[in-house]
Amino acid sequence: MVKRYLELRSFDEAIDLLKKTFPRPEKTEKVPVMQAAGRIVVSPVYAKYSVPEVNLAAMDGIAVRSRDTVGAIDANPITIDHFSRVNTGNIVPPEFDAVIMIEDVWEAGNDFQIRKSATPRQHIRPAGEDIRESRLVLPKGHLIRPFDIGALVTYGITTVEVLTVNVGIIPTGSELVPLGARPAPGQVVESNTIMAQVYLSQMGAHCTRYPIVPDDPDLIRDTLRLAVKENDLVLISAGSSAGTRDFTESVIRSLGELIFHGVAVKPGKPAMLGRVNDTPVLGLPGYPLAAQTVLREFAAPLLESWGFAPAPRYPVTVRLAQPLVSDLGFDEFIPVFVGRIGDSIIGAAHGKGAAVQMATVKANGYTHIPASIEGYEGGTAIEVFLTTDPGSVERTIILTGTLDPALEELASLAQNEGLFIHATNPGNISGLRALTRNACHAAPLSLPAHSLHLSYEPLISYNENPDLAFIHLATMELGIVSRDGLDTGDLPHARFINTRKGTPSRSILDDLLKREGINPAQVDGYLQEVHGPQAVAAAILNGFADAGMCTSGIATAEGLRFVPVASEDYELVVQKEMLNDPRISTLVSLIKSPRFYAILQKKGGYDLTLTGTIRELDYKKNVSALLPGNLLER
Amino acid sequence: MVKRYLELRSFDEAIDLLKKTFPRPEKTEKVPVMQAAGRIVVSPVYAKYSVPEVNLAAMDGIAVRSRDTVGAIDANPITIDHFSRVNTGNIVPPEFDAVIMIEDVWEAGNDFQIRKSATPRQHIRPAGEDIRESRLVLPKGHLIRPFDIGALVTYGITTVEVLTVNVGIIPTGSELVPLGARPAPGQVVESNTIMAQVYLSQMGAHCTRYPIVPDDPDLIRDTLRLAVKENDLVLISAGSSAGTRDFTESVIRSLGELIFHGVAVKPGKPAMLGRVNDTPVLGLPGYPLAAQTVLREFAAPLLESWGFAPAPRYPVTVRLAQPLVSDLGFDEFIPVFVGRIGDSIIGAAHGKGAAVQMATVKANGYTHIPASIEGYEGGTAIEVFLTTDPGSVERTIILTGTLDPALEELASLAQNEGLFIHATNPGNISGLRALTRNACHAAPLSLPAHSLHLSYEPLISYNENPDLAFIHLATMELGIVSRDGLDTGDLPHARFINTRKGTPSRSILDDLLKREGINPAQVDGYLQEVHGPQAVAAAILNGFADAGMCTSGIATAEGLRFVPVASEDYELVVQKEMLNDPRISTLVSLIKSPRFYAILQKKGGYDLTLTGTIRELDYKKNVSALLPGNLLER
Repeated sequence: MVKRYLELRSFDEAIDLLKKTFPRPEKTEKVPVMQAAGRIVVSPVYAKYSVPEVNLAAMDGIAVRSRDTVGAIDANPITIDHFSRVNTGNIVPPEFDAVIMIEDVWEAGNDFQIRKSATPRQHIRPAGEDIRESRLVLPKGHLIRPFDIGALVTYGITTVEVLTVNVGIIPTGSELVPLGARPAPGQVVESNTIMAQVYLSQMGAHCTRYPIVPDDPDLIRDTLRLAVKENDLVLISAGSSAGTRDFTESVIRSLGELIFHGVAVKPGKPAMLGRVNDTPVLGLPGYPLAAQTVLREFAAPLLESWGFAPAPRYPVTVRLAQPLVSDLGFDEFIPVFVGRIGDSIIGAAHGKGAAVQMATVKANGYTHIPASIEGYEGGTAIEVFLTTDPGSVERTIILTGTLDPALEELASLAQNEGLFIHATNPGNISGLRALTRNACHAAPLSLPAHSLHLSYEPLISYNENPDLAFIHLATMELGIVSRDGLDTGDLPHARFINTRKGTPSRSILDDLLKREGINPAQVDGYLQEVHGPQAVAAAILNGFADAGMCTSGIATAEGLRFVPVASEDYELVVQKEMLNDPRISTLVSLIKSPRFYAILQKKGGYDLTLTGTIRELDYKKNVSALLPGNLLER
Repeated sequence: MVKRYLELRSFDEAIDLLKKTFPRPEKTEKVPVMQAAGRIVVSPVYAKYSVPEVNLAAMDGIAVRSRDTVGAIDANPITIDHFSRVNTGNIVPPEFDAVIMIEDVWEAGNDFQIRKSATPRQHIRPAGEDIRESRLVLPKGHLIRPFDIGALVTYGITTVEVLTVNVGIIPTGSELVPLGARPAPGQVVESNTIMAQVYLSQMGAHCTRYPIVPDDPDLIRDTLRLAVKENDLVLISAGSSAGTRDFTESVIRSLGELIFHGVAVKPGKPAMLGRVNDTPVLGLPGYPLAAQTVLREFAAPLLESWGFAPAPRYPVTVRLAQPLVSDLGFDEFIPVFVGRIGDSIIGAAHGKGAAVQMATVKANGYTHIPASIEGYEGGTAIEVFLTTDPGSVERTIILTGTLDPALEELASLAQNEGLFIHATNPGNISGLRALTRNACHAAPLSLPAHSLHLSYEPLISYNENPDLAFIHLATMELGIVSRDGLDTGDLPHARFINTRKGTPSRSILDDLLKREGINPAQVDGYLQEVHGPQAVAAAILNGFADAGMCTSGIATAEGLRFVPVASEDYELVVQKEMLNDPRISTLVSLIKSPRFYAILQKKGGYDLTLTGTIRELDYKKNVSALLPGNLLER
């Protein structure tokens, strides 16, 4: 056995080391006030003059001496002959201490009559009302917001001294090509340092990306030596695992000191910290989600400890749609999709592959599972930090079940209506379970075709099942999919990929094998189960299997060959009362729209005769009597 | 009586008109992916190729055919002679369908021995795992976040088509001077259009500010005519009230159609909407907070209805520290300072003057009081939208009572420690009440000097009063303040400004008048009450009074003349258990610091002998027996 490399620090210990080893560089710059939004003030900002500088009229009217008005009442009007006509914003001459509104005066020749006395300061904006000369406008450490800039300008401030920091970012890796180049297989576009630059720039850092350095320790060393001279913080992207070509650690050791390599955090385990010439050097792992963890949980907190504003973290408490497992001893950061279902906010965790950037793109939040926790049951309330505005929670539809390209098209139409669709593909049974537990708005399900009451039975046999409505999306052909046009008879000679029990493709396959007299044990891969037809097609495309069952729509979309066997209904299943939810109403009207029809028509493989039909199913009344029991095994 | 001008629309009706009159212009532009953060995607973005494009090793090890490994167990190792050595990220040649980790193989000459069978797909990142070629990356309407940019780059996307809009902003007003010029009295620096530009740019708008136009209808008309040609939305700043020189309405009427002028919203009542050449023209009121309302509540929602991302609104439920009055029939927007006290989040509303920009600068949130509500009792739970990150709520100290420049200096030191200080000046009694109700962290109070148990009685005579601790800030001289050096004997001949009952200056004045045999009725202005010494000094500076009582520190700071009469203790009063709050501990250590001492020493007027002393007062044990009853009238 070959030895592995990392001695893992705990996350807390690593953060602690990072913050306490590197005191703030206190670097500042002067920026014009108009460019100061989002920046941090480094020394208190004071008003250049009072605003207003003199007493101003707060109303249109006449400026008077309040003493001259004493005793004026309706029965005893007083004529004021010493006054000044003023409009709102005009200077109140120093001899006057009150303004009477124009509505409250009556013209009397050249003078004005009043019927009510005025008190000192009445309808006057006193000098310094907004701010007094030399008074504090912004304290040290203030994050400048757009409306603050209006105040700064008003108070005569034209430039502001703000915090700044130089961050150097070094991409390393012989497999990298720059933005704009088409990567050959095995190459990747260098994206992590671009992401780092955009992310840290938003905190106010000046970022310099160095050219891509191939996996050559001497070249990496030269670039790092330069970068620590030019910057207050250096990030080295990748080369931090323990492969034969991971040189970051040895380069840091050769120029300075390694503080840690390996942190008990997921994704992000290969995170690394060194010190070269008193400059912190952070090693970013190569997997994008691991790089994100190190940016958000290491680099950003370091900048925060240096006085920069934290990237806004908007916590929301959500109820977990599914159980969430986590490795004991590891702090885990997991993308989460958050949406409101009825009165509660539901969080659906995304898969945890560090390479799957789409997880973060789709999610509107993430959660941090501390090292001491092994995971959560479904339904547990956990804290999620949103990565979009909180309004997204109200505009989100969570769909759980079996995905088909038809649903992707529907999602696309819904997104044009301002809705966010979060669709996951754990299969029919998980979808139905989520629906029952109010953990999704709707479950897209593949069901054996055209036989609602009988064939849907196994899927709706939960005792606790609520009344359901089935919104018909399309009827699709189901058949054998392959690269080479395999048919039923070829199954014993092919590597097969199966779907789980409870899916139509599984039942239809079993029927088929029975009919053809093929023993399932003869089929290589019969026990290899994936969630549904999309996964079947992917496995065949990637060479992990030769044949499987999927729909004609997916086969067409993937360019695979297809031999039809049966057909299935693709239904969007909701709890009946959800039909009143405006988000679901929008979905229904989109399903019924000519546009959706035209798109599926063009894709091919869909029978749209019943599209948009809604059938309500009262489980207790219509079905329970027919059922022998719970047919579902998982 | 002179007629007023506005026919007010309700806020809801105005917003409705705004949104339904102006459909989205659908203007787009292509931006490089690195500059796309914060922008809105206008058409779906698809992956240029699959990522990964081919199956890759997810571990260092050997790529094998899973079929060759069937049957391998510890007792029956299998030697694999057909394999490919791979590192993480390397291409898995198409003939292989699994990777075995290097830890799980044993070298056997040129071959490897294994003791466990491999399943298809094991330790392989299948082609398309992250995304498949041509699959949706970002739907139409997606707001691009920094981490999204990493994904876009990875998927081969170099430019993105995003929503854009041109906004023209016209500053009008003969009293305006541009940024950088020193305004003469009665002039103001033109700041609202700068604020508008910064605010709307953050939503992704391209803003053009036109040069300042004086109050001349022809010049305003020329500029507006040009601006509606060049832009999708035009804002005209000011000229929207009904003064003799407010021409915005007539200019809009002369070029197009006035849709409304006057909305039942505060601040922002003069808001105006017109249509010129199908372009919306929004009239911004001149008062900065009113302009903010129109930007945030009219301009931003219009851009939102055009597909732009909403400016993030982070709602938090707060308990009101004080009652909050509101005009029935008006939608009001009020700056609020939000901080956590113990288990609950407290909101302290700011004064509502539309001209007081400092209110928004100091606040970390605002609340919207609908037209149907007349106001709230203190303690009511209301919704506040934060304007800073939610973390600010935990770093905030709310101080309510009597302010003195010494406290400003302390606040400045605390802000350097990362704390936000929200100090309001409603006077001793309100401060003590807030303290009792847990509506502030601490109450800065001016108390008659050096006689804790007897003289503080009136202030602590509430039955419900908790045990208090008094942190001594300074002892200060109290005396007669004036521009001309007035003394006690001059009081009957001067315009006086008094402070409220319950303040030391009031009791000391009353003692003084008694001693000198002056009848309070002889003192002009004895009944004119302001909160405390700062307000006294301001009234004298602004010419509303000739004399009053204040502290030597304030008199010195304001350059007023001062005749000492007595002295007072300036104490920071807290509930005893609050001494354990880390924020209060920080304050205490700052009060005790040599730096605070040096600053007050330099300011002058402060006796620092007892500074930092903490005296605990157990009301029930020490004081209640002495008290005749509740001496406070309000």
